[in-house]
Amino acid sequence: MDAVYKKSLELHKKHGGKLETRSKVPLKSAHDLSLAYTPGVAEVARAISKNKNEVYDYTLKRNSVAIISDGSAILGLGNLGPFAAIPVMEGKAVLFKELAHIDAFPICLDTQDVDEIVRTIKNIAPVFGGINLEDISAPRCFEIEKRLKNELDIPVVHDDQWGSAVVVLAAIINAIKIKGSRKNGLKIVINGAGAAGTAVAKILINYGFPDVTICDSRGVISAERKDLNESKLELAHLTNKSVGNLESAAKGSDILIGVSKAGLFTSATIQSMNKKPIVLALANPIPEIMPQEAKDAGAFIVATGRSDFPNQVNNSLAFPGIFRGALDNKVKQVTMVMLVHAAENLAACVANPAPDKILPLPLDKAAVLAIARAIQN
Amino acid sequence: MDAVYKKSLELHKKHGGKLETRSKVPLKSAHDLSLAYTPGVAEVARAISKNKNEVYDYTLKRNSVAIISDGSAILGLGNLGPFAAIPVMEGKAVLFKELAHIDAFPICLDTQDVDEIVRTIKNIAPVFGGINLEDISAPRCFEIEKRLKNELDIPVVHDDQWGSAVVVLAAIINAIKIKGSRKNGLKIVINGAGAAGTAVAKILINYGFPDVTICDSRGVISAERKDLNESKLELAHLTNKSVGNLESAAKGSDILIGVSKAGLFTSATIQSMNKKPIVLALANPIPEIMPQEAKDAGAFIVATGRSDFPNQVNNSLAFPGIFRGALDNKVKQVTMVMLVHAAENLAACVANPAPDKILPLPLDKAAVLAIARAIQN
Repeated sequence: MDAVYKKSLELHKKHGGKLETRSKVPLKSAHDLSLAYTPGVAEVARAISKNKNEVYDYTLKRNSVAIISDGSAILGLGNLGPFAAIPVMEGKAVLFKELAHIDAFPICLDTQDVDEIVRTIKNIAPVFGGINLEDISAPRCFEIEKRLKNELDIPVVHDDQWGSAVVVLAAIINAIKIKGSRKNGLKIVINGAGAAGTAVAKILINYGFPDVTICDSRGVISAERKDLNESKLELAHLTNKSVGNLESAAKGSDILIGVSKAGLFTSATIQSMNKKPIVLALANPIPEIMPQEAKDAGAFIVATGRSDFPNQVNNSLAFPGIFRGALDNKVKQVTMVMLVHAAENLAACVANPAPDKILPLPLDKAAVLAIARAIQN
Repeated sequence: MDAVYKKSLELHKKHGGKLETRSKVPLKSAHDLSLAYTPGVAEVARAISKNKNEVYDYTLKRNSVAIISDGSAILGLGNLGPFAAIPVMEGKAVLFKELAHIDAFPICLDTQDVDEIVRTIKNIAPVFGGINLEDISAPRCFEIEKRLKNELDIPVVHDDQWGSAVVVLAAIINAIKIKGSRKNGLKIVINGAGAAGTAVAKILINYGFPDVTICDSRGVISAERKDLNESKLELAHLTNKSVGNLESAAKGSDILIGVSKAGLFTSATIQSMNKKPIVLALANPIPEIMPQEAKDAGAFIVATGRSDFPNQVNNSLAFPGIFRGALDNKVKQVTMVMLVHAAENLAACVANPAPDKILPLPLDKAAVLAIARAIQN
């Protein structure tokens, strides 16, 4: 890992960041200037002032996405603030362009106050065709996303929630296909009830899995607990009503999903599951259990967030296609139905799923197009 | 003009706006992804969280400028709102890139409240190396710029003020050089006390012109008037203390500058000036007086804002260089001293000034570099 870190620092320093802007129109002569800028642009401004919708015909709003973070939950690193968030958001911006031809720009906020974040994003929304929220800590991310979805007329998607949810559901669709199971009989346990865990639970329930249990660091989230915030109380009502801890919940389960922390799954946990268990250990960079250890304990299929093991579960498979579809199909709100459909399309991109091949590799442009097709009204 | 308008609409529609983003780093392989995004980028985030200044080494902040408008004073068109502002700000963004290699991004604000604008800009500042305020109406623009200069540690420049001021001063430096006049004896009258007129008055006084009179639509701005807002009261104290109107002020003056409205200068106004008067009629698209009419009335040198007449006074000569210099020289505040120096450098770009050649043409990259050299501590 150290070599990757060193090379990454060097790459960033050499280029002074990763993202640049470019003109799509010529600017070599006075004539060019008269069309791209004054006096010609005055007519474009007048046309838009007469009909606001023409902003999509004449400006970058047609194809632009803001990638917005307050730096409160950067990767697995925690609350490092807006400046440390910039290279991560720039990385997403270059992925947006490379994979989906979207002109995305990073916006890192110098506030972590929910009201202030909502106001700021509403204030800067006019130039953007979509808002990708990123690396904002739970439970603040839930309220911010909900309010923006209600108050803006462009799509707003918190990628840590819904990008993760789409890729995890796609992974599970292919994993149970390989195993030959039907979703009705399966018991799923999720460990971790932050942004990703919460959205994964919701999409799995919407897809039709009847028995989903979710745990946080204090055990199973059940309505009997007195320490639940609003979003966890909602989860308690949506999910399996049992009480207990990760160990008791995992016992006899078929699918175990970790969106939590390094090392939280033991061999004993895996051994206590039903036969041929499916394990998604997605903590980054060190998973809840290393793949070989999980296999040795009987896991049939193992996925992680890492590129150096098979079955990488990576949001970059989902977010470019979600926004490509939303922009192309003029979708104002990305719904759960669209996201489930996106996961099905993503799963179908793998022609012959196998235990070590349940998802397309990152940077797969066919996956982007497959997901984009699902995001339409 | 109609042909330019039609072609401009077509150009904007064909390309869907003018600005795009691009990756500066390769993204073709899993290895590329591991350096530009996860896991490598985690080390970049950690480095910046330990030392905030490294954000300038590792991210686009090194070379990025936000072009921010609330759409309250778009070109000469008035308050058309943030959506109509987008094509204008995009036009500036492509000029920034083409002329000064700056990665600028348009931000159009869905609020016209001064406090809200200041808060929003402060909240989104982390990712930017500079803030170019644009097309914000007076007197709100003065307070917004002043507060942001005090509260941010990146350069903040309202281009309608200071871009205009630099180019006008450069034009006048060369005009009086051609005429053989010295600045001490000259009387200058400015018509128009909005953003541009106010800044032009200030830079001319700072440059050393002893007798500057400024008029708004009600006449000369003098402290005796009871209808002055704060910024005009400041002007009244800085400028010639006389009372009267445009006609009485222009009588016997040497330089007449219009940053006002079409047709406000008559032949009689020009004829009432001192001999060989200099006239800058900068209203767009129709000047205060047409060049031929001014010449017929005795004007020695005439400049306008238009590209189809000689001596085009256009902000695009100034703003790219101002920010190029500020970014390269790590300037936190662009000062009046720097701006005066920039105007002198811009004037010096014209090797042999003549009545029909007092400024470089727009898109002159030597002018950008000359101005950039002036913006340093």
